[in-house]
Amino acid sequence: MSLLVIGTVAFDAIETPFGKTDKIVGGSATFASLGASYFYDKIKIVAVVGDDFPQHEIEDLQNHNVNTEGLQIKQGEKSFFWSGRYHNDMNSRDTLVTELNVLEAFDPIIPDSYQDCEYLMLGNLSPQVQQTVINRLKNRPKLIVMDTMNFWMDIALDELLKTIQMVDVLTINDAEARQLSGEFSLVKAARKILTMGPKYLIIKKGEHGALLFHENQIFSAPALPLAEVFDPTGAGDTFAGGFIGYMAKVGTVNFNNMKNAIIFGSALASFCVEKFGSERLRNLSEEEIANRIQEFVGLAKFEL
Amino acid sequence: MSLLVIGTVAFDAIETPFGKTDKIVGGSATFASLGASYFYDKIKIVAVVGDDFPQHEIEDLQNHNVNTEGLQIKQGEKSFFWSGRYHNDMNSRDTLVTELNVLEAFDPIIPDSYQDCEYLMLGNLSPQVQQTVINRLKNRPKLIVMDTMNFWMDIALDELLKTIQMVDVLTINDAEARQLSGEFSLVKAARKILTMGPKYLIIKKGEHGALLFHENQIFSAPALPLAEVFDPTGAGDTFAGGFIGYMAKVGTVNFNNMKNAIIFGSALASFCVEKFGSERLRNLSEEEIANRIQEFVGLAKFEL
Repeated sequence: MSLLVIGTVAFDAIETPFGKTDKIVGGSATFASLGASYFYDKIKIVAVVGDDFPQHEIEDLQNHNVNTEGLQIKQGEKSFFWSGRYHNDMNSRDTLVTELNVLEAFDPIIPDSYQDCEYLMLGNLSPQVQQTVINRLKNRPKLIVMDTMNFWMDIALDELLKTIQMVDVLTINDAEARQLSGEFSLVKAARKILTMGPKYLIIKKGEHGALLFHENQIFSAPALPLAEVFDPTGAGDTFAGGFIGYMAKVGTVNFNNMKNAIIFGSALASFCVEKFGSERLRNLSEEEIANRIQEFVGLAKFEL
Repeated sequence: MSLLVIGTVAFDAIETPFGKTDKIVGGSATFASLGASYFYDKIKIVAVVGDDFPQHEIEDLQNHNVNTEGLQIKQGEKSFFWSGRYHNDMNSRDTLVTELNVLEAFDPIIPDSYQDCEYLMLGNLSPQVQQTVINRLKNRPKLIVMDTMNFWMDIALDELLKTIQMVDVLTINDAEARQLSGEFSLVKAARKILTMGPKYLIIKKGEHGALLFHENQIFSAPALPLAEVFDPTGAGDTFAGGFIGYMAKVGTVNFNNMKNAIIFGSALASFCVEKFGSERLRNLSEEEIANRIQEFVGLAKFEL
């Protein structure tokens, strides 16, 4: 029984109105596994890095209950690198540099010890690679959550649609839901996407929270209104990781547990944006998380 | 004891992607008083129309418990007329025609029988006129709610700021909160606006719901995800009217009652957008409203 996280482990260089970083560790699998680690302790990661990736960063993942047997280290190659600059509104950004490096020929090898996977988080990555991971698991996991982005809709829509068919939960943002469905109304977009394979759809709306759709049910989760968003990088990955980590913890897949999982994922994402990269996710205390959850409860509660 | 609604009673001609209307009855006071009428039955209106305004429309307001003694009918003059075209996203619109007509020299006369006003809804209108109404009331109402828009921030900011100082609750949308405060973060914007006079601030976010700010408390209300938004005209006025109508009904001004008032206001606004103009607000049943409220409860509820 374990939670398998697939995605990127990479370097980011980030500019926001608050400052700028040199290369720091990022990547969808990094954020998602750190997010999940606060709720579940049997996390296994499949990803690839170059020999430029610091050993102590791998050890830090291990210290967060992340099994790194499936983390491939390619000698003589460099890790994936992304650099971006956020605009003042923090909702839009320009990509300055994308160096695929080790990602170009990434073959996601699943160690035998990972075949006990019950929960599978397909972090943002090429849909072809996401699909390969599903196909290489001998038993279909109990819950497959897939995160993706507009980039794959633009360049690999057919592969994306094939992969979407195979998953239980799809997480995308509102613009992506509109792009994928061709519908402006999110209700209509969700109806259409729920015919494409996933039984659950989570539409992430950033500062406006998230919507969960399943059959005819809808849940609207608030976002915590924040005075400062320091760096949004990784917030979506952290949300997804927190979501599936909580689902793995409770162990029963249903709409009510998913509602709570969205609140836990949102809480972790709200920490993520407080500092550059994954820094804030490195040492959260249980008390900090519990207090943050109570803020969400207070924020959304009314008695009618 | 009554609820006084001040604002416009007017004609609108509307184009949306779904169709187009001839002149139909609109105006902030029309929508707000109809919205309030579902919760409270002592509504008094102050507004002005020309002699082109149909008598049966005035009677329809009266049939919704709206006292029209303060509705001035200017002989030989024409009613305020606005025409607009909504874009496909329904969030933005172009104004095609604005004919102020009777509004140009509107002097808001308060009938003596209105001096029992306990709840005052300042619907969207020139801040100078809104202020005059406050000054003409012999006793300060228990609760003053003010709605306004970016137009007044652009052309009458000083008057607007003076009026804002005098009210308890300000309702504006997110772009307007940013414009008024000069802050991008809505939390910072709210903090600043709460130093300008109002004790409560409601930031309307359209399809993303609404935020209520008071001291250090925040409430995040969901919006009902809708498959079709037929015509958004008047939704904000209806929200404000439903909000203050519910507050007048419960009679105690506090944060918890305001949370519920926001849900009731949002429910009425969700009906408003289902048809052109105020048509859907003319004949709502108690059962329809109760069911809609239950949809909001189901949408937002989680157990943590």
